[in-house]
Amino acid sequence: MNRKELFSNIKSKKSFLCIGLDTELKKIPTHLQVYDDPVYEFNRQIIDATKDLCVAYKLNLAFYESLGSDGLLAFEKTLKHIPENIFTIADAKRGDIGNTSRMYADTFFDYYNVNAVTVAPYMGEDSVKPFLDYPGKFTIVLALTSNDGSKDFQTITDGKEMVFEKVIRKVSEWGNPDNVMFVAGATRNEYLKRVREIAPEHFLLIPGVGAQGGDLHTVARYCMTDYCGILVNSSRQIIYASSGKNFAEAAREQAKILQQQMEVLLERI
Amino acid sequence: MNRKELFSNIKSKKSFLCIGLDTELKKIPTHLQVYDDPVYEFNRQIIDATKDLCVAYKLNLAFYESLGSDGLLAFEKTLKHIPENIFTIADAKRGDIGNTSRMYADTFFDYYNVNAVTVAPYMGEDSVKPFLDYPGKFTIVLALTSNDGSKDFQTITDGKEMVFEKVIRKVSEWGNPDNVMFVAGATRNEYLKRVREIAPEHFLLIPGVGAQGGDLHTVARYCMTDYCGILVNSSRQIIYASSGKNFAEAAREQAKILQQQMEVLLERI
Repeated sequence: MNRKELFSNIKSKKSFLCIGLDTELKKIPTHLQVYDDPVYEFNRQIIDATKDLCVAYKLNLAFYESLGSDGLLAFEKTLKHIPENIFTIADAKRGDIGNTSRMYADTFFDYYNVNAVTVAPYMGEDSVKPFLDYPGKFTIVLALTSNDGSKDFQTITDGKEMVFEKVIRKVSEWGNPDNVMFVAGATRNEYLKRVREIAPEHFLLIPGVGAQGGDLHTVARYCMTDYCGILVNSSRQIIYASSGKNFAEAAREQAKILQQQMEVLLERI
Repeated sequence: MNRKELFSNIKSKKSFLCIGLDTELKKIPTHLQVYDDPVYEFNRQIIDATKDLCVAYKLNLAFYESLGSDGLLAFEKTLKHIPENIFTIADAKRGDIGNTSRMYADTFFDYYNVNAVTVAPYMGEDSVKPFLDYPGKFTIVLALTSNDGSKDFQTITDGKEMVFEKVIRKVSEWGNPDNVMFVAGATRNEYLKRVREIAPEHFLLIPGVGAQGGDLHTVARYCMTDYCGILVNSSRQIIYASSGKNFAEAAREQAKILQQQMEVLLERI
């Protein structure tokens, strides 16, 4: 899926919502635990209940890897259940020396065939570039993350620019808005505007709205562009809205609340 | 395994060699391809041929993940085949927001029961700390990596210290030499001395000797301490020493060359 198609989906669905399938076995409603693969069954029902309200699903590998090879099967089955026209993100935060990054890129783009993978920039150019060689795929580079620890190294400055600014500037030189997006946390309002200034054309993946305290309207004010330009992720607030038999319906309600707010915001463009 | 036991193994084996099992299906000798699990069979034979010459094995997840759930089974079986008294490192370079890093830590320390896991520091304190809570386990934090891209962000300076120096200093405050090690690439000689100054007590995991061009004697001169304090990794140079039926024997020969050099260096302490 290219940038134009993603924007087209955003317009037709009136949503720039990305739902994070951070599915933990112990948080799944008890009535699903009898299934052979409760994680997949949970995801399947969440997807069926929300697929008309979101344009992307993000699967964080940590939750699937924690179940070993069974978890990776659940990851794979979940991806196959997501409709073709919904953008899929493997939230893996990978990054290694060149030949090893290429292995990761092959894994996610070829083997699992996701639309995008998140990448950590600490190891620099040769750790990021191998991901950029897959036509029609997106590399989503961590720039400014939503967690407290983002203050430790991402905002170190050499007097001219901060580390996250340099990451955005350099990665923008290695790739382009058709194969690169950036992660910019909704909890760091003071810097969101700056992110958009350095990357005026790139889509931003914005976590931190909801459970982590970020605000949708602020994010939109600072980062929305004429082609939307943002995917706002919500995970726990949606998928764990209820721990009862109505979990999928409750997830739909939460997703609907966000989608309706997004619909209003999208009327501007 | 604690730091004292690791040093004891180094002394008795006269080696501080870590062998990287970066096993790629397409690089495995053709006569092994008939096995149900060629990756495991390759690793098994390499381990049997080298286990008296090294004190650690490092398995880079990229190579196992590329085969999906089958790859993770090979990873798991390989770990089980490594003798109890050899230090095991999952080279995963993970790091995420707090609750997600905890999932990764559980996966590697509890589920796979490795002695150590590599962690990328970009996301800061709450992404690293969850890994530090496992008694007897080590978190190996990327400080100064061996690849070209290490120049992009790791050496940015605020005028007082570079990013990799700040990473070492801060992580040393969060943990201690009994649960933290650092990655310091053998290819960055100009900074290796500085790494040892900031982290006088920590073990360093040193990649980049061999295929990447680093020199064992320089590394030892700058970084060896009274308790050795370094694990030097070699991957491709050892495991792909031959692509024929004699691959395990050839790997042993390469490992033996490094071990003998290390034996001489260890006589100083």
